[in-house]
Amino acid sequence: MKPFKIFLQAITTALLVLTCFFAQAQDIKVVYHVNTDINTASAILGNVRNHLNADPKAKITVVTHGPGIDFLLEGAKDSKGREFSGMVSDLAGKGVQFRVCNNTLTTRNIDASKVSMEAKIVPSGVAEVARLQAKEGFVYLKP
Amino acid sequence: MKPFKIFLQAITTALLVLTCFFAQAQDIKVVYHVNTDINTASAILGNVRNHLNADPKAKITVVTHGPGIDFLLEGAKDSKGREFSGMVSDLAGKGVQFRVCNNTLTTRNIDASKVSMEAKIVPSGVAEVARLQAKEGFVYLKP
Amino acid sequence: MKPFKIFLQAITTALLVLTCFFAQAQDIKVVYHVNTDINTASAILGNVRNHLNADPKAKITVVTHGPGIDFLLEGAKDSKGREFSGMVSDLAGKGVQFRVCNNTLTTRNIDASKVSMEAKIVPSGVAEVARLQAKEGFVYLKP
Repeated sequence: MKPFKIFLQAITTALLVLTCFFAQAQDIKVVYHVNTDINTASAILGNVRNHLNADPKAKITVVTHGPGIDFLLEGAKDSKGREFSGMVSDLAGKGVQFRVCNNTLTTRNIDASKVSMEAKIVPSGVAEVARLQAKEGFVYLKP
Repeated sequence: MKPFKIFLQAITTALLVLTCFFAQAQDIKVVYHVNTDINTASAILGNVRNHLNADPKAKITVVTHGPGIDFLLEGAKDSKGREFSGMVSDLAGKGVQFRVCNNTLTTRNIDASKVSMEAKIVPSGVAEVARLQAKEGFVYLKP
Repeated sequence: MKPFKIFLQAITTALLVLTCFFAQAQDIKVVYHVNTDINTASAILGNVRNHLNADPKAKITVVTHGPGIDFLLEGAKDSKGREFSGMVSDLAGKGVQFRVCNNTLTTRNIDASKVSMEAKIVPSGVAEVARLQAKEGFVYLKP
């Protein structure tokens, strides 16, 4: 029986060690919280791109609300007249997720059909930012 | 003895599982970090209200310092001339806590008696923002 | 055998309790994320100083990118014409660490030799902000 007990203890300890190990080994998950206007969007998308270049395994979710959603609306262009959709698609292709706050759509009377196909609509941007951190192990970054 | 051993192992495992479960099941705690001026306060309080609508069990603490404390001073009004006290009391009634940085009061020569009854004064706003995250399990949000 | 089993169980439980205890007892580690221009730097360094006054054991790392790096460049002065180097050295002497984003240096064509001796250059500011939180137990603060 003693060997069995020791075996069980070993399993328990191993599980604890593995838990710590996996926490360390896991890919980093980051929520980018964006509520600033469209003039800040190019720099923010540049930050996301640089982040992925430095850490290609990072899982990045960009949560937008308020004026922050504008670069994810149909036909949105940067100050040089280029559509944001190219950069957004490019990042989405690298695994970046985009979220748009439904409260913002309602308040600003914007139809859901105007939102980029790459973005998912969530009920509340701020609640999503908190949920990703508290329940999904994301860390926070306000660009 | 073997059944007893298995029982103890089961307890240990159950405790681990429960720990994980409770971490998942726990209500989300969020610190809103506010150091922007009074023109941003209405939108920020709107964010807090929307957050609670989306997640009524969220525990929200608003920590203010620098220009961020202004909406929590006696008689503070928004751009439409409405006192902030109504909205602040309303949110406080829903469990939202407000904190004001004492360093800011000292630097700006503001008497503690000018601070809203709904707010609690803390020695340092930034240290409180860090403490809530590191010691009390709060996640962060900069509105 | 029973006492030995109980002993092992006690060890396991003690380890769990100790883990929780150490998490609580550990000094707070905070990453200050700075990407705003040099006009905000005095207030930010003031925040860091106030933070340390309130919590002298806090370990603070200031990660800068974009316009946020400017106060860490050689000869940088505040609006009153005082060099930032004095305040930076003072804080470094109290254990504060400063990091400058290499992507920013490259994009802005700034030679590494222009960066303050007190600062360490990291490949990516945003990736460093995420890494410190996800892998080193830092909490986040955007001043």
